[in-house]
Amino acid sequence: MISAAIVGGTGYTGIELIRLLSAHPKVSIDLLTSRSEAGTRADEIFPSLRGISDLVFSDLGDDTLSMLQRCDVVFFATPHGVAMRQAEALTQAGVKVIDLAADFRLQSLSDFEHWYQQSHTCPELLKKAVYGLPEINRHKLATANVVGNPGCYPTTAILGLKPIIELQNQQKTQLIDARIVIDAKSGVSGAGRQASLALNYAETTDNFKAYGVTGHRHLPEIEQGIAQLLNSQFTHRVRFLPHLVPMIRGMLSSIHMELTEVGKSIDWQQVFEAAYEREPFIDILPKGIYPDTRSVRASNRLRIAVHQDNERAELTVLVVQDNLVKGAAGQAVQNMNVMFGLDETLGLNDAPIVP
Amino acid sequence: MISAAIVGGTGYTGIELIRLLSAHPKVSIDLLTSRSEAGTRADEIFPSLRGISDLVFSDLGDDTLSMLQRCDVVFFATPHGVAMRQAEALTQAGVKVIDLAADFRLQSLSDFEHWYQQSHTCPELLKKAVYGLPEINRHKLATANVVGNPGCYPTTAILGLKPIIELQNQQKTQLIDARIVIDAKSGVSGAGRQASLALNYAETTDNFKAYGVTGHRHLPEIEQGIAQLLNSQFTHRVRFLPHLVPMIRGMLSSIHMELTEVGKSIDWQQVFEAAYEREPFIDILPKGIYPDTRSVRASNRLRIAVHQDNERAELTVLVVQDNLVKGAAGQAVQNMNVMFGLDETLGLNDAPIVP
Amino acid sequence: MISAAIVGGTGYTGIELIRLLSAHPKVSIDLLTSRSEAGTRADEIFPSLRGISDLVFSDLGDDTLSMLQRCDVVFFATPHGVAMRQAEALTQAGVKVIDLAADFRLQSLSDFEHWYQQSHTCPELLKKAVYGLPEINRHKLATANVVGNPGCYPTTAILGLKPIIELQNQQKTQLIDARIVIDAKSGVSGAGRQASLALNYAETTDNFKAYGVTGHRHLPEIEQGIAQLLNSQFTHRVRFLPHLVPMIRGMLSSIHMELTEVGKSIDWQQVFEAAYEREPFIDILPKGIYPDTRSVRASNRLRIAVHQDNERAELTVLVVQDNLVKGAAGQAVQNMNVMFGLDETLGLNDAPIVP
Amino acid sequence: MISAAIVGGTGYTGIELIRLLSAHPKVSIDLLTSRSEAGTRADEIFPSLRGISDLVFSDLGDDTLSMLQRCDVVFFATPHGVAMRQAEALTQAGVKVIDLAADFRLQSLSDFEHWYQQSHTCPELLKKAVYGLPEINRHKLATANVVGNPGCYPTTAILGLKPIIELQNQQKTQLIDARIVIDAKSGVSGAGRQASLALNYAETTDNFKAYGVTGHRHLPEIEQGIAQLLNSQFTHRVRFLPHLVPMIRGMLSSIHMELTEVGKSIDWQQVFEAAYEREPFIDILPKGIYPDTRSVRASNRLRIAVHQDNERAELTVLVVQDNLVKGAAGQAVQNMNVMFGLDETLGLNDAPIVP
Repeated sequence: MISAAIVGGTGYTGIELIRLLSAHPKVSIDLLTSRSEAGTRADEIFPSLRGISDLVFSDLGDDTLSMLQRCDVVFFATPHGVAMRQAEALTQAGVKVIDLAADFRLQSLSDFEHWYQQSHTCPELLKKAVYGLPEINRHKLATANVVGNPGCYPTTAILGLKPIIELQNQQKTQLIDARIVIDAKSGVSGAGRQASLALNYAETTDNFKAYGVTGHRHLPEIEQGIAQLLNSQFTHRVRFLPHLVPMIRGMLSSIHMELTEVGKSIDWQQVFEAAYEREPFIDILPKGIYPDTRSVRASNRLRIAVHQDNERAELTVLVVQDNLVKGAAGQAVQNMNVMFGLDETLGLNDAPIVP
Repeated sequence: MISAAIVGGTGYTGIELIRLLSAHPKVSIDLLTSRSEAGTRADEIFPSLRGISDLVFSDLGDDTLSMLQRCDVVFFATPHGVAMRQAEALTQAGVKVIDLAADFRLQSLSDFEHWYQQSHTCPELLKKAVYGLPEINRHKLATANVVGNPGCYPTTAILGLKPIIELQNQQKTQLIDARIVIDAKSGVSGAGRQASLALNYAETTDNFKAYGVTGHRHLPEIEQGIAQLLNSQFTHRVRFLPHLVPMIRGMLSSIHMELTEVGKSIDWQQVFEAAYEREPFIDILPKGIYPDTRSVRASNRLRIAVHQDNERAELTVLVVQDNLVKGAAGQAVQNMNVMFGLDETLGLNDAPIVP
Repeated sequence: MISAAIVGGTGYTGIELIRLLSAHPKVSIDLLTSRSEAGTRADEIFPSLRGISDLVFSDLGDDTLSMLQRCDVVFFATPHGVAMRQAEALTQAGVKVIDLAADFRLQSLSDFEHWYQQSHTCPELLKKAVYGLPEINRHKLATANVVGNPGCYPTTAILGLKPIIELQNQQKTQLIDARIVIDAKSGVSGAGRQASLALNYAETTDNFKAYGVTGHRHLPEIEQGIAQLLNSQFTHRVRFLPHLVPMIRGMLSSIHMELTEVGKSIDWQQVFEAAYEREPFIDILPKGIYPDTRSVRASNRLRIAVHQDNERAELTVLVVQDNLVKGAAGQAVQNMNVMFGLDETLGLNDAPIVP
Repeated sequence: MISAAIVGGTGYTGIELIRLLSAHPKVSIDLLTSRSEAGTRADEIFPSLRGISDLVFSDLGDDTLSMLQRCDVVFFATPHGVAMRQAEALTQAGVKVIDLAADFRLQSLSDFEHWYQQSHTCPELLKKAVYGLPEINRHKLATANVVGNPGCYPTTAILGLKPIIELQNQQKTQLIDARIVIDAKSGVSGAGRQASLALNYAETTDNFKAYGVTGHRHLPEIEQGIAQLLNSQFTHRVRFLPHLVPMIRGMLSSIHMELTEVGKSIDWQQVFEAAYEREPFIDILPKGIYPDTRSVRASNRLRIAVHQDNERAELTVLVVQDNLVKGAAGQAVQNMNVMFGLDETLGLNDAPIVP
């Protein structure tokens, strides 16, 4: 059994990790830490876990690090800036680190500092960190010691663009226009488990709005994904605009592109189907089916629909995922499976919950 | 024009008062106070008011009282315990006071102190205060200087029981069993405009629960309503259990009673229709129609359905209202209309918003 | 492997059965029938099943029965009145039948005919049918050939009352008053997967209402549960009133009772804990915790909170379940596990989905 | 008083018209027709209207036309294709016609036939019909006899683009790139009051999806708006993609554009403020405020936020309205006010309902 620890398990990604890892056949959660909730049973905070988990939050103080060092893998479900302070000591002890926050996502230190308003504390380790998108970095993940689990929006954006950018590279020809508009929509759980007037039910339900109009932290991550992860030979200008949907879980990114003349000659449905043929969690929907977010609710699947309109030179890619699963905790478990040489789908086969 | 002030207009009853009074043909809102938001325009906090109201929150410090004293009526949309500290000075200056909190609801000082955990600061004034339920206290309200605007649940309970208790008194015979079960359900806006984890959208939506199982402040108010307001000759044992519904506005109280043999001989539908025949805001639905909360959304109407099943000796009364209107701000305006000799429906004729 | 068939899998209990049985380690779904959807893949109707199930709906016409007879167990997720027409032929062929509709719930033929407006076609088989509540009928289920899976409301009511009625029987003393008020609330999925104006989103959301005021089919089932299943020595008068909550899944029943003097001397929290100590799916919450429906979302658990107020002689039992799982498909699988001698929890251990 | 008739008042735009016109000080609804509901009181179908309206639906058969001809104005809240069959006879009788369906929106007969799959029955009258967007066609509306009330999406798109296109025309220079992406989101009431599985609460809530990916009837209307209504000197390629939001009312259109070099030199906030300075229903939000749909709930206001990012050459315009008010019934009343020389805001001054 893999001995796992979860640091900071009181948020929504935390409880989702507990839910997924508790049912994982090869994992034992041996440590669950929280400063604010030390001494409290997890199922006191989340009564849904009654009968599922007997875990107790602990704050081991000075001993925390040495306790974490006895585990095989540590998941950080903490605010940005926590994992980078402990990652070095953990990796030196041979512990693998998966950070669900942003500490190991952006390779550019200046981007990190600009968007997260803090200095990076272990830039050398950051260089060795692997961006945890198995559909792209599977081989690197197999030997990774530190993994930056992707942001939820970038997961949809990068996987939605991958077949296009890669075909462009392969054909050395621009197939879509330089400008890409990603109009994205997320359920409210993406904002985290917090007391907030803006997230009060009476403020949020029966309502819809954009946010992050002036810039969102996930934009540089998407741009990095296109430029470095997908090694795009062509420069793209990305407009990313997120919106808040009155629903708990779920994310839909509508990616709008214009096809070049060469791009029109491509059968994009086929390109996407071929690109993801062997991916256990990526589902290319048949033509004419619209993905809805509930079709992936509580599951690690990500579904993509491709719409090509040559007359108008439009290519629209619609991507849905559960922001807490493929967009966070599920992807972290998928990464762990790869890092430990397990079947990548282990513990992640639950069917979506519909209705 | 009646010069009105609203003290503490940053909550949901506050904005509802602003909405209703801004459209009232005989009222001018001359003062809006808030300590926390002094200097801020109301439409900055509530952008829905842009173009509707130019009011600015003020904190007049030492001058507040003298400014309030120049108004004709002061509405307190404040936490419990604020109005009772200013009411005396205001009434002495001839200003009428309508408190939307609980300071002037309970005549029993010990009940007030027990349920609200504070001493009453003006017990003499409390004795003169009128419970603001126009359908019962219309005559007293006409000359009242201080009005305790009823709690939302008690409004549904007392108006739902009124025809029954009064007929019992009139016939000097028990028509229903002593035990009355009030199983009540409220939308989330009833919990107020606040940052709260428990009220976070992702915690509240697609979810349902009871609360206040061990006792709720509105129970003594309901019991007072039966015993004093309705002068019940018979003692009733009330079980009151509130629930939280994932909706913004709306309240439904299901009142379960057992009919006595004499009670079975009554045509309760007719009794209710007769009792409320002349009430502009009380609507007795025809037999067989279930009231839903949206049928009163954003309006001051309260709808009642009466179901009588003689075979099972059951009498069920279903009462719906908008908790922010008839259950709070609308009733306060209705009280004001009565207190100032205006047409009771002035400013309160808007149709419910459906869908 | 147990060879299972699902007759009529296009509704919400149907897809829930597909979801649960697809993940069950000892079951293979070998047949899925639907007249209206014959030839269609299940994942065309429910895209959430893409990658989960390759099942195709079939309508075998005259061969249907012989195909069903080759299975070990047949689940009927059909309208009332279908299962009873095929059950006899199936049991004669040694096939076990689990009906999720009402054909085998009510032992009284006249009750069945009154509430479901049709004659029963196999009254002899009905007598041998077992009411599928494992927490009460576990031993009978072990050898049952035909099981009537309980209604969703009756499951909460009967399990919420069981410890009380049984203790009453044991002590041969009335511990609660004869009158029991069950004020119940259900999510919208309970109304089924159908095109209906009343269930249109814009009609249902941000809204709350009672229904079935004049009587609901689940009332005779609850009464039968108390009188026959729990063998109550005392007669109880039950008032049952269901409400529609704007949420997808979930059911909360608030059961209101009055304690007799002897009843007050009982520690009901302890009674409930002892009664369900060994039940894998029944969770008695610690004192002071309110159950919310999401704490059982998508799981087979049923949680109960007990509130005793001796001063007011009140006993309130709050019961939550997922209406589609413990209230329908999950309980059917639990019944199957018992009928086939499997571990009762097999395939039913998933954690609830929160948030 | 203006004598008004509503043809087909059983849908959501119908009840919204009843609500608004019932409160209008200069209008009397003298006729309400529905074939399916003839003889039924409006408040039987919509109990929210109890106490508001005593209207009864009528089907006058052969007399319908002559009855309608006695009115001053007829609103058609009917399916597409109904108004055009009666408009000629009505206008000949001097009756003004406002069609809330699409019969008089598109000037191109081939577009109408392509998108609505029927021939136009009165092409001559269509030429004289005025597109009912008062902010653009106020002068034409003053003398119009037939008005095509705009679609909900086009209202947001055209008003969101108007200041830009007009400034481009004025400066005879392209200020934005030719490609415009309109990613739009609507509440469920936009799909109408109908029994539909796809609109069932359990299918729609906690869910989000795109629709009309392959083309939506409102696209040609938006293109006509840019080309003809706004007389754009430059050709624009519009991508329009609508989404379904789990909320009742409300619409947000996110309009994505790229600025040319000249376009970057413009202060777009100021341009929008100046353009709509005198418009009673158009509100340009201050910089940095995101419009949410609830800020216009149940009101005729439309709010716009402008975000300009010169570094990225992005111009984003966010437009919100209530799809049933400014997007349908409210705009129809606004048109009527203009057509009859009344104050344009009459009957349309209600504050939005928040929360």
